[in-house]
Amino acid sequence: MNLYSIEDPSFLKQKDDEELKELAQDVREFLIQSCSTTGGHIGANLGVVELTIALHKHFDSPEDRLLFDVGHQAYIHKILTGRISEFETLRQYKGLCGFPKMRESDHDVWEAGHSSTSLSAAMGIAKARDIKGEGHHVIPIIGDGALTGGMALEALNHIGSDKTDMTIILNDNEMSIAPNVGAMHNMLGRMRTNTQYNRVKHDIEDFLNRLPQVGSRLRDMADRIKDSMKYLVVDGVFFEELGIKYIGPVDGHDFAALSNAIQISKDYKGPVVIHVITKKGKGYHPAEDDKLGKWHGLGPYKIDTGEVLGSKTTPSWSEFMSNSVLERAQEDERIVALTPAMPVGSKLTKFQNTLPERFFDVGIAEQHAVTMAGGLAASGMRPYLAIYSTFLQRGYDQLLHDVDRQNLNVFLGIDRSGLVGADGETHQGVFDISFISPLPNMTLMMPKDELEAEQMIDLAFSHEGPVALRYPRGNIKGVEQSTKMKPLKYGQWEEVVEGDDMTIISFGPTLDLAIDAAIALKENGISARVVNARFIKPMDQAMLQSLGIEGNPILTVEESMLTGGLGSMIASFMADHGFTTPFRRIGIDNEYVEHGDVNRLLEDIGITTENIILQSRILLEQNNEKEIKN
Amino acid sequence: MNLYSIEDPSFLKQKDDEELKELAQDVREFLIQSCSTTGGHIGANLGVVELTIALHKHFDSPEDRLLFDVGHQAYIHKILTGRISEFETLRQYKGLCGFPKMRESDHDVWEAGHSSTSLSAAMGIAKARDIKGEGHHVIPIIGDGALTGGMALEALNHIGSDKTDMTIILNDNEMSIAPNVGAMHNMLGRMRTNTQYNRVKHDIEDFLNRLPQVGSRLRDMADRIKDSMKYLVVDGVFFEELGIKYIGPVDGHDFAALSNAIQISKDYKGPVVIHVITKKGKGYHPAEDDKLGKWHGLGPYKIDTGEVLGSKTTPSWSEFMSNSVLERAQEDERIVALTPAMPVGSKLTKFQNTLPERFFDVGIAEQHAVTMAGGLAASGMRPYLAIYSTFLQRGYDQLLHDVDRQNLNVFLGIDRSGLVGADGETHQGVFDISFISPLPNMTLMMPKDELEAEQMIDLAFSHEGPVALRYPRGNIKGVEQSTKMKPLKYGQWEEVVEGDDMTIISFGPTLDLAIDAAIALKENGISARVVNARFIKPMDQAMLQSLGIEGNPILTVEESMLTGGLGSMIASFMADHGFTTPFRRIGIDNEYVEHGDVNRLLEDIGITTENIILQSRILLEQNNEKEIKN
Repeated sequence: MNLYSIEDPSFLKQKDDEELKELAQDVREFLIQSCSTTGGHIGANLGVVELTIALHKHFDSPEDRLLFDVGHQAYIHKILTGRISEFETLRQYKGLCGFPKMRESDHDVWEAGHSSTSLSAAMGIAKARDIKGEGHHVIPIIGDGALTGGMALEALNHIGSDKTDMTIILNDNEMSIAPNVGAMHNMLGRMRTNTQYNRVKHDIEDFLNRLPQVGSRLRDMADRIKDSMKYLVVDGVFFEELGIKYIGPVDGHDFAALSNAIQISKDYKGPVVIHVITKKGKGYHPAEDDKLGKWHGLGPYKIDTGEVLGSKTTPSWSEFMSNSVLERAQEDERIVALTPAMPVGSKLTKFQNTLPERFFDVGIAEQHAVTMAGGLAASGMRPYLAIYSTFLQRGYDQLLHDVDRQNLNVFLGIDRSGLVGADGETHQGVFDISFISPLPNMTLMMPKDELEAEQMIDLAFSHEGPVALRYPRGNIKGVEQSTKMKPLKYGQWEEVVEGDDMTIISFGPTLDLAIDAAIALKENGISARVVNARFIKPMDQAMLQSLGIEGNPILTVEESMLTGGLGSMIASFMADHGFTTPFRRIGIDNEYVEHGDVNRLLEDIGITTENIILQSRILLEQNNEKEIKN
Repeated sequence: MNLYSIEDPSFLKQKDDEELKELAQDVREFLIQSCSTTGGHIGANLGVVELTIALHKHFDSPEDRLLFDVGHQAYIHKILTGRISEFETLRQYKGLCGFPKMRESDHDVWEAGHSSTSLSAAMGIAKARDIKGEGHHVIPIIGDGALTGGMALEALNHIGSDKTDMTIILNDNEMSIAPNVGAMHNMLGRMRTNTQYNRVKHDIEDFLNRLPQVGSRLRDMADRIKDSMKYLVVDGVFFEELGIKYIGPVDGHDFAALSNAIQISKDYKGPVVIHVITKKGKGYHPAEDDKLGKWHGLGPYKIDTGEVLGSKTTPSWSEFMSNSVLERAQEDERIVALTPAMPVGSKLTKFQNTLPERFFDVGIAEQHAVTMAGGLAASGMRPYLAIYSTFLQRGYDQLLHDVDRQNLNVFLGIDRSGLVGADGETHQGVFDISFISPLPNMTLMMPKDELEAEQMIDLAFSHEGPVALRYPRGNIKGVEQSTKMKPLKYGQWEEVVEGDDMTIISFGPTLDLAIDAAIALKENGISARVVNARFIKPMDQAMLQSLGIEGNPILTVEESMLTGGLGSMIASFMADHGFTTPFRRIGIDNEYVEHGDVNRLLEDIGITTENIILQSRILLEQNNEKEIKN
């Protein structure tokens, strides 16, 4: 059918299974074609084509509430709710969001990006329904990987005891992002492949029924056993133990099986989990055959070969960090590495393969990852935890209460710090400076390039206390290895450009913008010093003191929230010390930054060479006016 | 025996069960006596007397690692490791900590305060042991309530699949703090009381063995069934499904039973959970009979009657807030209340009893609580979530990613904001301003008294977007209800004392210190304005602008971290706007604040009327010097 004619999912009600199969085929072809030019989470979406169609056929969205956990698997949902024409702008600046988005459609009733939130949200939505006396269905759709996130288990515990009416779709594709880990994964595997549980039950019933005449005591006992059969193990005992009815496993690519399971769940009052088995990448060989998670989320690719496009010149920061840590781990047996389900994203697979006994992928479980790192450190190890800035928010209390408060030697590699681009507002790594800086024992750094990073890694593994090193999404600069570096001193900033009229302070990738601005200003007769504030905490007090005494205007530039950012800490320092240095800050001012090309986003925020030049000029003019007044 | 002679637990090895019973009796009497004067977590500790003694007899601490989850049940551990003489200073300034503390003893291998961290820490410690080739035991001791915290479940998932050797003591006292909730609680209840599971298994085996001669097909089937018996349900199926061997239930007050279970676990390689049934408050009737959680943590009491000492003049802030919310809920059907396991601490039991269908105690599950509130709000309800400041750290990502990013109408009552006193550094509510202020859509307030709070509550329930209201531990001021209040305007601060020479800005309980200081300064000819910065976010830009233009010195006072606190935001505002106002900040400077009387702690930090006066004088002197110079 012409997918572009779809306005809403109501047309599905009239379709039979054969027609749905054709529709699924059309949707699949469209997705493979469309994502080959835009990139996107193609693998996850190919896995849920039939499932999403079936849900929209048997439920009435938006009256019935579909909640997509994580949300990157909602492309088919977007197509079925009339958004196919926007797919050419997928994940681009001002374009279609890669996740559900309330303002795009009434059918998007809950937004996500981070994992494991759908069950708690569904519980809230279901209780609101019950209080208001409404009768609609609530259907969270959660992957097997997301189910291991602690908050999903907290929600299951509540849902099971409350007996709240909802249909939980457990989308079990045997992978979350990388291959799954953990006991629940093993358990689901048993449910999937092992029919022995049910067979035992049937065997015993059968046996008891076919018994020849036996003595009355034995017959009594046989009856009693039959009566107790309800206590025998059945599939889904884990869920049943929690008070949630289990239906499954169901073939997630079979419309008849899906229809049957959904009907049973609709007739049942109380919480139901439908265990749906899907194949990530289904129908597209390069994605189907992916064992590593490469096809989780990616850029444009060649359809026929599956070759991912885009030339790679230098290694990514993730690769650089992980390999640098591995090199040191080969020399120092105390070094271990941890990741919460991101061995591929954080490029830790080489570490995993080289030192498997010192590598831990704990699954989607950031809280556990942070505190486990603390436990390792408490026993004398030197744990390195690679974690995306945005996901570290999940382990905040653990970082504060367990790691920082106990002053443990945990080394955090904060991946994807700063703007991340296409994944958008749920994934921007712009809050970590604000929430880490108040922690008393923490050291927080960001290198200007990989040579500086090397020194920081050495520092992190020898420092007593927790250390975090932020690094951006994208590739390292490719600095000549022979470039001379002054030894890094703890807490010391670096003057990278000399200047007499004013000072621009920045760190990480935005330092280059400041340097470019200083060069341009110099051509116009303004001499701007540029300082590399590579230690965000502790700040370089001696340098700040001398800048304060000097009294020249200061401009700070950071790819981070202004509130609680480095600029705010410098402003506080100056105020505390009685310096009345003229001051301006560039950064993100109290807004969530949406998806799009990072450079385009930086332009909107004003993190550009041009704006640094402009703000420098304004600052100097203000200062001149003031000096004239005095 | 003379408990004061105990230096370390080695003496226990020689004791038989009868002697241990006497020891338990002595310990119990000591605890009841000692806590009656100091206060403390008496209930939890009375429940684990025999358990702690048994663990120290059968394991070799500190070589074997005992990790007390939450940690408030470690009093007996402290006695057995030679700290009894310090009990008279329990939870007092510079005295014995109410939780494990590494610097107190080598036997305290992990510190806690917040719940559910022990399994992750144990996993880290156990993996460090395995990597180093050591052979010691790792024994996390976790309550049934703490087990429902998401991070504990994340850890179980990892431990079960990794098959890490450890002995998990599940201390099941049927209550966490308040009576437990949730499906896991129900499940544990079934394990505790129902022997039917095992009986079925035994019945069938017995039956098969006693069968008369039957045909060969039937005999084959009987053999096959016997062979499949391992798949039949046994106690602890939830744990067994996760790959963790289950032993129990065990009477936690029976030394022989404990000894037996511990021996089995020591012989087993891999993860074991020993399900120990204990009685909170065991041996002391007022605590044993407590059904509400009143005896969880408390002040001094009369031993004979259990009457808690201390005169109560005005209601607590928790009581005031909860009752005010209840009043509004009785008028507005959209209002619902949530608590993560703190119905008693947050004084929500009246709400619970009055409007049970609109009240949710979700258990120790802060993440779920925050996002469930978001789900309720997304469906048009007006959820009120009462949560301690320190525990909100657990729900940080949920607050940011789910509630604030989606701009949902969730009203957070942030209980125990500021210093909390006896519970110490794990519980001080001093980080929330720093981690909430960067969230773009949030409104953050703190009232100076309960009349202002009433207006803030009205505002919170009518505002579009998330609102947080901080309130302190302790009692409301008892302001005359007839006191006239100007209507509260969103984002507007209040001048509470007029003054021409300088401005002191504060909020919440410390505002009174500022007022007292202003009065004292006035007597000495200094005219200090006092401003009530009741909106921490958004700040009153108009007032800040006029203060900046005026140019008089500003002193900020906050019972909160300086980094990311209100003072830092004001300093940034002044700098951003080109104001060079002389400035000073009083607050907590980059340290964890330990336990002790709040007033004593405030003195150490400098949050006192005297220090406000002193800092005001210094600020004015600096300003005069500068003006003379210009």
